[in-house]
Amino acid sequence: MASHRPRVVVVGAGFGGMNAARALAKVPVDVLIVDQHNFHTFQPLLYQVATAGLAAGDIAHQVRGIFRRQRNVRFLMGRVVAVDWDVHEVALADGTRLAFDYLIVAAGAVYHDFGTPGVFDHGFVLKSLHEAVTLRSHMLRQFEQAAKDPEHLEHGGLTFVIVGAGPTGVEMAGALVELFDRVLPSDYPELDVGRAKVVLLEMMDTVLAPYGARSRAYAERVLRRRGVDLRLGTAVQEVHADHVVLAGGERLETRTLIWAAGIRGHPLAEVLGAPVGRGARVELERDLSLRDRPEAFVVGDMAGAVGEEATVFPQVAQVAIQQGKHAAVTIARRLRGEAGTTFRYADRGQMAIIGRSAGVAELSRRLGGFRFTGFLGWVSWLFIHLVYLPGHQNRVNAFTNWTVNFLTFERHARLILDTERPLEDRASRGTIEG
Amino acid sequence: MASHRPRVVVVGAGFGGMNAARALAKVPVDVLIVDQHNFHTFQPLLYQVATAGLAAGDIAHQVRGIFRRQRNVRFLMGRVVAVDWDVHEVALADGTRLAFDYLIVAAGAVYHDFGTPGVFDHGFVLKSLHEAVTLRSHMLRQFEQAAKDPEHLEHGGLTFVIVGAGPTGVEMAGALVELFDRVLPSDYPELDVGRAKVVLLEMMDTVLAPYGARSRAYAERVLRRRGVDLRLGTAVQEVHADHVVLAGGERLETRTLIWAAGIRGHPLAEVLGAPVGRGARVELERDLSLRDRPEAFVVGDMAGAVGEEATVFPQVAQVAIQQGKHAAVTIARRLRGEAGTTFRYADRGQMAIIGRSAGVAELSRRLGGFRFTGFLGWVSWLFIHLVYLPGHQNRVNAFTNWTVNFLTFERHARLILDTERPLEDRASRGTIEG
Repeated sequence: MASHRPRVVVVGAGFGGMNAARALAKVPVDVLIVDQHNFHTFQPLLYQVATAGLAAGDIAHQVRGIFRRQRNVRFLMGRVVAVDWDVHEVALADGTRLAFDYLIVAAGAVYHDFGTPGVFDHGFVLKSLHEAVTLRSHMLRQFEQAAKDPEHLEHGGLTFVIVGAGPTGVEMAGALVELFDRVLPSDYPELDVGRAKVVLLEMMDTVLAPYGARSRAYAERVLRRRGVDLRLGTAVQEVHADHVVLAGGERLETRTLIWAAGIRGHPLAEVLGAPVGRGARVELERDLSLRDRPEAFVVGDMAGAVGEEATVFPQVAQVAIQQGKHAAVTIARRLRGEAGTTFRYADRGQMAIIGRSAGVAELSRRLGGFRFTGFLGWVSWLFIHLVYLPGHQNRVNAFTNWTVNFLTFERHARLILDTERPLEDRASRGTIEG
Repeated sequence: MASHRPRVVVVGAGFGGMNAARALAKVPVDVLIVDQHNFHTFQPLLYQVATAGLAAGDIAHQVRGIFRRQRNVRFLMGRVVAVDWDVHEVALADGTRLAFDYLIVAAGAVYHDFGTPGVFDHGFVLKSLHEAVTLRSHMLRQFEQAAKDPEHLEHGGLTFVIVGAGPTGVEMAGALVELFDRVLPSDYPELDVGRAKVVLLEMMDTVLAPYGARSRAYAERVLRRRGVDLRLGTAVQEVHADHVVLAGGERLETRTLIWAAGIRGHPLAEVLGAPVGRGARVELERDLSLRDRPEAFVVGDMAGAVGEEATVFPQVAQVAIQQGKHAAVTIARRLRGEAGTTFRYADRGQMAIIGRSAGVAELSRRLGGFRFTGFLGWVSWLFIHLVYLPGHQNRVNAFTNWTVNFLTFERHARLILDTERPLEDRASRGTIEG
């Protein structure tokens, strides 16, 4: 690695960070990616891990492996907690300090409870692989508990409440009813699995708000037909360990609240010293740099209003990917003494699936404006997600898993692998409680 | 499920329990398998999960899935803590009580520290999937730490000490040096990975004690040639967080002690009210039933001396499998009013591998007594383990992983997935520390 080349520190190995680093391959800089995990997580498929459709490893890819052949990239595992602009260093939680000439912050988003009490104490969210495995384990444990104790079913043990009917909530609800209808009945012949319920709560009066009317109506119809208890215009007031209270005062017994109601920019946004706007997202110059800091960029879910027009882009993978690349290109331009150009989003459209053989896909106008619902929407979704999933072996594994899932209604990954009792197997000092 | 059929409770879903349940398929009984995990763990391959050769899911198979088509089997997730012989019930940790007419206890073994201080506080063992993932994560974290801080390497951060050169220790050592020699150098170009060390300590003066002289010599030669620091006749006196003290007083700096030195019967053995002999294993009648309790059996690693001859069988998968089947057959005989027969072990031999292309396989005399070392031993091992691995998809995944590993020196599963900071991603309430 040549020294004295400018060093670009990239914070976060999500879509934004990975694509920024990749786009810097031929730029004369040294790139250092920092992430708290040693792998990239393919977030759009987290709900499939949570519903046992895919194994955790299928949607993760080790960062060092991805950049094995790109010689100007290094990786460092750690959690960035501050930026010191005076000396141009980022500080990690363990005290390590990393000097940078250019900085790309791509730390993503976190879930936001909007002040609802109990969400993070009793509810589940889906931003990390660990959370997906924890949620899957928790849900399967509810069935094991019900198989052991019929009272559990009577008291909402098999009622699964999802808050927020955006793409994550809708895909989760679709995958859950499919799991309950087609997979678990043969696992639990002693249980009336038909009594397991999926309740999908949405504050607005529609599912998939950003989609067209036809897609929304289709998604709503499919969810209801497949047995999801969809309640529009319904907010959650409080979350407790064994029930939730809805805005009208209604009480729903449940041990499983999945919070997909809304996200906000990663708290790192607040220590950058830049203006933070709606949704805790950082306001940026038109080339995605920070105001008065042309050497620093924010991309992806953390990025807020851009330029004088204050254009706000959706918090989706495509925006993060394109913004990551744009930040890289802008750094290359700065190195050549050129000014940055305005970020423009090339919208390709959006897609979501509602379980087996049912999806909605809306291509953008520049791709012809085609809109599919049903089987074709579902197949398009599978295809696109396979293409974007990083790692050959991940693609092979996901394809194999999906094919087996489709043909056999099996779900290979229904293992309870959480860590409720992490040490119990290590016992060998005398008692069974160990 | 017909009622009034005798109920067989099987404790443990390892090799013994699974094979007992399977062998009861056509016997007019209802079978209830109880295990603390909802999956069978293929223990012989745990070290491959720990060394990133296989993903955790590849060697686990959900118990309910295995018995989907065997209608007289039910499953219950729970931990057995006691047996009440007066009313013929087993008690679970959560208070559930399960009545039985016949009982098969197959709870396996746990690691034994032989009184060595610090083993379970600072060391790692390999009996469960969770432990394998924890060990893998810990070891990879040592490399990440060394990449961040050169001092870590100076103070034993990349010294990996394995205690016990039985099959587990030898296979672990072989897989680790392979990982360090062939896989990690390209992951960590900034590190001198060649300085990572594997130290294999063995109290006896040979590796693979139960094997023939030729296999032992071969294994020893290969381990040494591949760079394992093999120390025979060496015991561990104390284990600390950052070093171990050997019997002679020598101090080895390390953060990773893997304890493969010896096992003892699961502590459940002690609450059965039966005589417990050497290695905390239960002494049994010649048909594997408990003394004076013809309705109760112990099989597998928990089973000790059998019959008046006090025959002791090795604690290996083949014995557990055959004993599980024998207990099932004995129950069928009891139901027909016939006496049980003496358990006889049909020894097929033993095999172990020492990393890539090097293995030892010793077929028993009844299978011709052939002995292979080298590539042929390695291939035989792979073949046998694929055949015995439960679950079609597991077999496909393992085969794919092994092929990719062999051809590309890649290790797909090198993800740090432990739970050192389980809650951090859920933070969204204001601070970055969250």
